[in-house]
Amino acid sequence: MSAHLDNLRVVLIGTRNPLNIGAAARAMSNFGLKHLRVVNPYEVAFREARSAVGAAELLASAKEFGSVAEAVADCRLVVGTTAAGRRELRHRLQRLEAGGRVIRRRLAAGPVALLFGSEKVGLSNRDLSFCAWLLRIPTRAQQGSMNLGQAVAVCLYELVREGKTTRAKNPAPWADAGKVEMITQLLCGILRSSGYVKPRLDSITEVNVRRMVRRMQLDPSDAEVWLGMLRQIAWKLAGDHGEG
Amino acid sequence: MSAHLDNLRVVLIGTRNPLNIGAAARAMSNFGLKHLRVVNPYEVAFREARSAVGAAELLASAKEFGSVAEAVADCRLVVGTTAAGRRELRHRLQRLEAGGRVIRRRLAAGPVALLFGSEKVGLSNRDLSFCAWLLRIPTRAQQGSMNLGQAVAVCLYELVREGKTTRAKNPAPWADAGKVEMITQLLCGILRSSGYVKPRLDSITEVNVRRMVRRMQLDPSDAEVWLGMLRQIAWKLAGDHGEG
Repeated sequence: MSAHLDNLRVVLIGTRNPLNIGAAARAMSNFGLKHLRVVNPYEVAFREARSAVGAAELLASAKEFGSVAEAVADCRLVVGTTAAGRRELRHRLQRLEAGGRVIRRRLAAGPVALLFGSEKVGLSNRDLSFCAWLLRIPTRAQQGSMNLGQAVAVCLYELVREGKTTRAKNPAPWADAGKVEMITQLLCGILRSSGYVKPRLDSITEVNVRRMVRRMQLDPSDAEVWLGMLRQIAWKLAGDHGEG
Repeated sequence: MSAHLDNLRVVLIGTRNPLNIGAAARAMSNFGLKHLRVVNPYEVAFREARSAVGAAELLASAKEFGSVAEAVADCRLVVGTTAAGRRELRHRLQRLEAGGRVIRRRLAAGPVALLFGSEKVGLSNRDLSFCAWLLRIPTRAQQGSMNLGQAVAVCLYELVREGKTTRAKNPAPWADAGKVEMITQLLCGILRSSGYVKPRLDSITEVNVRRMVRRMQLDPSDAEVWLGMLRQIAWKLAGDHGEG
């Protein structure tokens, strides 16, 4: 995670439900954000939220403000959030992904505030007037309104996920070809003695089994397990055969 | 949003809190997912959740199952979710972003199940044994565990956001989970009757076998071949046993 994330301020405005303040704080804690600001929360809500699981420290250091203006005063960029597109507003909407890229860049330069409105009404026109633009979470039009705690989690995830760095998966080591062929031969033997194929296994069947075993892409430890299992099965089939 | 999203099944296992079931359903509704499955929810939780705001229709059509096996039987790919990395397991972990790409591709080929464990303990080792691999949400190590509703929202967002739309190389179709479980059960039976494991196979061995079979990543035609081979071997072992 980027050190610049320390520049993000999550600002909850007029939140009513303590569970939502707690959930927002927990998501911040999960994704390594530190600075929570609350503007005019319902008094009781904020007090109760302070006992939320897994985010006590963060909530203890949350700052309370009497107005949006004060809450964002030290920020270089102020962005509002919205789930459904609010067409009546003249704000530029950025989809979360594109907007997230801009925010990540701007975090390198100074504090950025991300505003979340109340459960019932979202951000008011006045709240929005503090915003440079709006971040739109790509929910569907018919069911646009997100739960506040979930909206915070989704936005923060977008900010912390590491964009392009599709990382070199360490290639899983594979079992060596010798082991894989031993498995193939054991399996062919079992198929013969179980009557799945005629005792003189025809070469087409053997080829098919060999290819099928390769498609299993066994790692060294699974290969050992398969060898052990097949040896035991082969032994059992041979033993019973001898007694019959 | 892709039409293929209709192939996603969100599977909640052992959920205790009705608010979390409701929150998961709401996030699904926000992002246009339809198919919710619950496995052994706390009875009261599920009943109460049905009244959750904004997702009534989705909850009414949610399906309840008595086991993970049944809940994923028709799925071609089963993926578990984890917030903190669970190092003790040998499952391959994919970060949400990379794993999401794989899931998006696989949704084009058939049903995919995404599993979420209970609030307290997440997915059990037995639950995990049904999974091909695990999706890891990139939370920080010290505060890894996410709220269930938020975890669902973040995963679904990753699946619906229209990234670079890294698009379909035609995905190889996989065998459905029901077939794969039949193979698991047959193999367990054979291991018992061959004496590889004690007749009363302990659950750890069964879990290991299940995971090993998932790692084979069988396609539908190889799955049929394996079923045929294992049935024959099982029949042979049982038959000889009966004569002895």
